[in-house]
Amino acid sequence: MPPSGWASRRLDSSDMHLTNLLPPPDLESGTLRVIPLGGLGEVGRNMTVFEYEGRVLVVDCGVLFPEEQQPGVDLILPDFGPIRDKLDAIEAVVLTHGHEDHIGALPYLLRERNDIPIVGSRLTLALVDPKLREHRLREPVHHVVREGDRMSFGPFDLEFVAVNHSIPDALAVAIRTPAGMALVTGDFKMDQLPLDGRITDLRAFARLGEEGVDLFLTDSTNAEVPGFTTSERNITPAIEQVFRTSEQRIIVACFASHMHRVQQILDAAAKHGRKVGYVGRSMVRNMAIAADLGYLTVPDGVVRDAKEIAELPPSKQVLLSTGSQGEPMSALSRIANGTHNFVHLAPGDTVLLASSLIPGNENSVSRVINGLTRLGANVVHKGNALVHVSGHASAGELLYTYNIVRPKNVMPVHGEVRHLVANADLARAVGIENVVLAEDGYVVDLRDGVASIVGKVDVGLVFVDGNTVGDVTEIELKDRLILAEEGFISVIVVVDSVSGKVSAGPEIHARGHVWEDSDFDPIRQPIIDAVNAVIAEGATDTYAMQQAVRRTIGRWVGTKMRRRPMIIPVVIEA
Amino acid sequence: MPPSGWASRRLDSSDMHLTNLLPPPDLESGTLRVIPLGGLGEVGRNMTVFEYEGRVLVVDCGVLFPEEQQPGVDLILPDFGPIRDKLDAIEAVVLTHGHEDHIGALPYLLRERNDIPIVGSRLTLALVDPKLREHRLREPVHHVVREGDRMSFGPFDLEFVAVNHSIPDALAVAIRTPAGMALVTGDFKMDQLPLDGRITDLRAFARLGEEGVDLFLTDSTNAEVPGFTTSERNITPAIEQVFRTSEQRIIVACFASHMHRVQQILDAAAKHGRKVGYVGRSMVRNMAIAADLGYLTVPDGVVRDAKEIAELPPSKQVLLSTGSQGEPMSALSRIANGTHNFVHLAPGDTVLLASSLIPGNENSVSRVINGLTRLGANVVHKGNALVHVSGHASAGELLYTYNIVRPKNVMPVHGEVRHLVANADLARAVGIENVVLAEDGYVVDLRDGVASIVGKVDVGLVFVDGNTVGDVTEIELKDRLILAEEGFISVIVVVDSVSGKVSAGPEIHARGHVWEDSDFDPIRQPIIDAVNAVIAEGATDTYAMQQAVRRTIGRWVGTKMRRRPMIIPVVIEA
Repeated sequence: MPPSGWASRRLDSSDMHLTNLLPPPDLESGTLRVIPLGGLGEVGRNMTVFEYEGRVLVVDCGVLFPEEQQPGVDLILPDFGPIRDKLDAIEAVVLTHGHEDHIGALPYLLRERNDIPIVGSRLTLALVDPKLREHRLREPVHHVVREGDRMSFGPFDLEFVAVNHSIPDALAVAIRTPAGMALVTGDFKMDQLPLDGRITDLRAFARLGEEGVDLFLTDSTNAEVPGFTTSERNITPAIEQVFRTSEQRIIVACFASHMHRVQQILDAAAKHGRKVGYVGRSMVRNMAIAADLGYLTVPDGVVRDAKEIAELPPSKQVLLSTGSQGEPMSALSRIANGTHNFVHLAPGDTVLLASSLIPGNENSVSRVINGLTRLGANVVHKGNALVHVSGHASAGELLYTYNIVRPKNVMPVHGEVRHLVANADLARAVGIENVVLAEDGYVVDLRDGVASIVGKVDVGLVFVDGNTVGDVTEIELKDRLILAEEGFISVIVVVDSVSGKVSAGPEIHARGHVWEDSDFDPIRQPIIDAVNAVIAEGATDTYAMQQAVRRTIGRWVGTKMRRRPMIIPVVIEA
Repeated sequence: MPPSGWASRRLDSSDMHLTNLLPPPDLESGTLRVIPLGGLGEVGRNMTVFEYEGRVLVVDCGVLFPEEQQPGVDLILPDFGPIRDKLDAIEAVVLTHGHEDHIGALPYLLRERNDIPIVGSRLTLALVDPKLREHRLREPVHHVVREGDRMSFGPFDLEFVAVNHSIPDALAVAIRTPAGMALVTGDFKMDQLPLDGRITDLRAFARLGEEGVDLFLTDSTNAEVPGFTTSERNITPAIEQVFRTSEQRIIVACFASHMHRVQQILDAAAKHGRKVGYVGRSMVRNMAIAADLGYLTVPDGVVRDAKEIAELPPSKQVLLSTGSQGEPMSALSRIANGTHNFVHLAPGDTVLLASSLIPGNENSVSRVINGLTRLGANVVHKGNALVHVSGHASAGELLYTYNIVRPKNVMPVHGEVRHLVANADLARAVGIENVVLAEDGYVVDLRDGVASIVGKVDVGLVFVDGNTVGDVTEIELKDRLILAEEGFISVIVVVDSVSGKVSAGPEIHARGHVWEDSDFDPIRQPIIDAVNAVIAEGATDTYAMQQAVRRTIGRWVGTKMRRRPMIIPVVIEA
């Protein structure tokens, strides 16, 4: 029975409203332990750790992008804490595909132990390479695999299966151990007529199902969406329509990893006598990699340098750009606000956002659409045309998959709580009774064919800020948010160490409000008096004096302005 | 021909990519001048100023809610700058309906001149009342009007027309002057079977069209959406389904202004033997107003105090709550994270988000849905059930309206750029040639039946922060964002005024990063040396010394951490 928003769900102890999980017991022999370090409870920073008799296998190692309440943060990593004392026990890191939320954190893991073997498909490892070079990591230990390959690492006997996704060369991985077989779908969908002909290998899933899948880790991203994910082919007519009706320049924005989409654009351009230039560093780099490795077929002479393209007659131009999520510094954003150095939008140009709108990015994308519209562009996007489809299986595909694999246990992964729960509902709907609902840090043991939550390890968000990792924690973020919402006032008083009295100040420096120096005049003397008072009471260290300053100015600002800026009182003895 | 994303639009000089508009010429006799102060280029803070021969009429006066890049800001007002020297010339403020983005800024206008007559429907003025009392404004000059009324204010001869919207008692207003007639739709849609039976009066629009509408100001919010806005009645089955299948408590979140929706909930509760409690201050207050004035029919005994309701058996409970947009401090958010003082969610409860998802709020709503899901609730929302419809006309309704009114000129209002342009396309599609695309601050003159942009006045965002208005400007917000993303470092040095040398410090206080005091040890002596150096070069004022401090620490932090925190260097002479 398909899931609906209506049915009351029968909940049991495996459901995730358990908040009081204890640390797990020691790992017993004959048990496969699974610990998600990221990707469960958020869409991003996917990383799952498998442990068997002291040896470790890691599947994926990605990043999560920050929200607006995490200002100044560039990236969020999975928390390596639970495996930090086991780095040497890591047999390999398997990368299912080349998206940032599966490979972006790998350099940070390799910085901790740089000879961990990396296993992945050819395109996936080719996309990992530049990252490792950026981080100045030594030539890593590579194992290129393709669908059908089997390879062992310690007690983990791996078999790779082709899956269809929004980036080529994506793999699912079966992990056989004496404790049972885990099958990880990675990110997948099941387009039956994919543009590159590489379908998700359901027959392999069937074969593994016959053998017996003990634990099935499945992509929950679109589990809430009923029906089936539209085929990529269905976009071709919409792209064709844009090319047929546009009289001037065409700018297309899509992900730099979406090679199939780029292929559709190149083909349309060739058909309509236009040339294509790539704009944006990652677009240029990724398309070069894809073309070199044969994942992109570039029609003769169609691709030129973007600056050359921008000089052609507008009706001959196609610019393929990054920035489809409205990222502020991206090429498309700069085009939208008129600050790009060589792409200057003109009325009558068409901009095609051939991409998804990742939840959370609605504001930035809207800003870009408004900017482009204001400059006179005709903006085509998934809100007004069929120009993008998801890369993830919807409920319909997940049901097929559960029925074909018929695993003993299911563990939904890759989603926020709402997605994981919707995925769990699907598995239960086809009759799979044991569904483990976990979040990051939960410890799941597979033993004698039964998977269950046995405890939880401490994990948190690990922030990358500039070139520091973990130097910014939630405490600093709280401070930053106070600074953002309230500003700060720095109050400095100098106390003469000889006379024991205030000798200079208060110097008051404030930011975040339109405060003039003179605004603080009424409180200066009271501050001096307050400090002198605590000195008279016998205080000899500056701490008590600083507290007096804090109280005096804090109360005054609170009353006068009803604000609570951060107060930095400093008393210096000189 | 219906608009599509495809057609290249023929653009002319009235289009908005004119960025170099000058201040307008003086207003000539016989000309109706229209200046939008808010609502064009953003969805919110609607306020339009009409001027004729020195007299002014204001239509609506609403607020805009801040985005995440406007931290610490509570509200954003329209910029009253252009009318500040004309306050005494304001004949009246007409309020089309009681939503915040149309009435929320009125108290701030009345604070500048408290006897401006306010004109609106009975419910609209009843919702304005508590706001004025909160701001301690004297009993204002009220004129209650209803559809069909005509009333003059100076040269403005007003006629009111019923329109259907997502709040009862909404009005459109025709403004007749010797220079021509302007017709303002206000916010509207055209549900032909509205729950309260009060349709948008198309016959009145037709009559006005026959007379001749010179300038038609139309609601652009849903102009990009093809087809017709679904009727409110279509939601009833979905609500019925929730009530029929829920075994435990039902919590419904919707806007405190959406009385029709509340009526549907009350009726369903009565039918299924449940009682209803209101949670959230504005819900309690607004439903009391609505019930008193007859806009809400409360079935006998169905509504009780929320705390009483929460004590009933779960299968008898309905709690109607604010917080449908995931507002952090709202009742629903507190329920979702388990911190509400008397509503404790249990597994099996149903939460129905019977509301729109206002663009921009996706993250906060998702946070709430995840929180509720984690607590075991079954969450029903517009993504998985037909439980909300828009309050605004879609393209289909707008086309009907243009064809019936056949105005000489159209000026799209109430929308971001993308919405305004889509609305303009609709007007042109039916053959209306003169469409004025304006944004906030543009000055539009209607003269001899032709409306055109004649210039622009300076307007900006006016921020309300706590109880201050305009004390926070974009400069302070920029500062706040730097503080948020980078933190700050305060460096204090004391110079002995006698010896002319550094006598204490540097005291370094930093926030926003995990900086220890000892982290700064390497740079302390260089700071002292830098200050002593500029003193030795003859500097006598602290400014040059502070710059030396700034350079020294700024360069060091930039190199060492690749961050650029705000630096506050202070040199005090003591």
